[in-house]
Amino acid sequence: MKIGILGTGVVGQTIAEKLVQLGHSIMMGTRDKKSTLAKTGKDNFGRPSFSEWLRNNSKVQFGTYSEAASFGEFLVNATSGMGSIEALKMAGENNLANKVLLDISNPLDFSKGMPPTLTVCNTDSLAEQIQRTFPKSKVVKGLNTLTAMLMVNPGLLSESTNIFLNGNDSNAKSEVKKLLKTFGWNENDIIDMGDITTARGTEQILPIWVRLWGTLQTPMFNFKIVVGK
Amino acid sequence: MKIGILGTGVVGQTIAEKLVQLGHSIMMGTRDKKSTLAKTGKDNFGRPSFSEWLRNNSKVQFGTYSEAASFGEFLVNATSGMGSIEALKMAGENNLANKVLLDISNPLDFSKGMPPTLTVCNTDSLAEQIQRTFPKSKVVKGLNTLTAMLMVNPGLLSESTNIFLNGNDSNAKSEVKKLLKTFGWNENDIIDMGDITTARGTEQILPIWVRLWGTLQTPMFNFKIVVGK
Repeated sequence: MKIGILGTGVVGQTIAEKLVQLGHSIMMGTRDKKSTLAKTGKDNFGRPSFSEWLRNNSKVQFGTYSEAASFGEFLVNATSGMGSIEALKMAGENNLANKVLLDISNPLDFSKGMPPTLTVCNTDSLAEQIQRTFPKSKVVKGLNTLTAMLMVNPGLLSESTNIFLNGNDSNAKSEVKKLLKTFGWNENDIIDMGDITTARGTEQILPIWVRLWGTLQTPMFNFKIVVGK
Repeated sequence: MKIGILGTGVVGQTIAEKLVQLGHSIMMGTRDKKSTLAKTGKDNFGRPSFSEWLRNNSKVQFGTYSEAASFGEFLVNATSGMGSIEALKMAGENNLANKVLLDISNPLDFSKGMPPTLTVCNTDSLAEQIQRTFPKSKVVKGLNTLTAMLMVNPGLLSESTNIFLNGNDSNAKSEVKKLLKTFGWNENDIIDMGDITTARGTEQILPIWVRLWGTLQTPMFNFKIVVGK
């Protein structure tokens, strides 16, 4: 499958590596190619610069948001939440139309330090804002509730855990589910929460996720929903 | 221990039954004794009226918010979140002072139908509002992330799960932890998240909890935090 990934951070990179392993054709998109490539040295998480990463992942094509969105038959929003709507506008409404958009972004505002706050919550969500802004796109919220390494390696945890899908289009959710199963997720571990408004719940998990990260001193954890005997 | 429970709904009743079983002396408090006793018939969940429940739980004493708060050396806020601050004001600042207040309430507004919205979130929480309003009280948020039956019977689930404590006073959290262990919770299942501001995270779990209730068609579930191998 030809997949366009918007965003060149750790989430975009991790998803891209996995998709290349799985044999997909990948183009990653950014706002401004030159300035993204110009960054050198380690990032805040001690990871190599994007340009270094790109040299080590030579099968990944690199373009603008618009080029990546045009390239992909299936799209992934891996931009940071505060910039997602703008990035998607730059990608272009027509390039998003009639395509599945797996939205991994979270509306986290780190500008006032830790812990981050949400830029939208309670009666709305970023996923809904994206779906409203691009009504022809098939937005599926998913994978936003765990760290990137676990998104593509659920088996790194000591037990099976859960992820959540939110979206209005059942076929789009099925497509996402099919892809996630190739990442190692079991059918039963993927919970279809319902329409896009249910993304309010999954996005509002982030505040406890961030605090658990601090308490557990590792991002390598996930939620499991345990039911009655 | 003498324990005062504010609120006569399903949470208050379930906690009271367990505490009586464990040998504690319980007084439940309400806004207006007469009107609470005057309600007859089943409630919205098909449960018997409070007056019928009280006849079947004759060891439980019954008083006003103020009487119950004065009675208890340890207090439980089991009122509905939208009325909690007012209920606690009626309980009386002096009756709350220097006591642990286990706050189980959630700031859920059901007035516009399902799903409920939060009356406070993101940059504040109900637990923080309570702690600010009653600075001499030792507020510990806890047990607000699962259904009442499971609060006092964690073994009804197929695996051990997690609950979260949020509060500024370490000794108060230790007291709550000790009580929760008598409910059947294991030491390791109770996660101390940190100070009272971490209650933002646990209260904001409710939107996904409510949606999972709909998706799973049962409230008999809980979150388990699974970590790396």
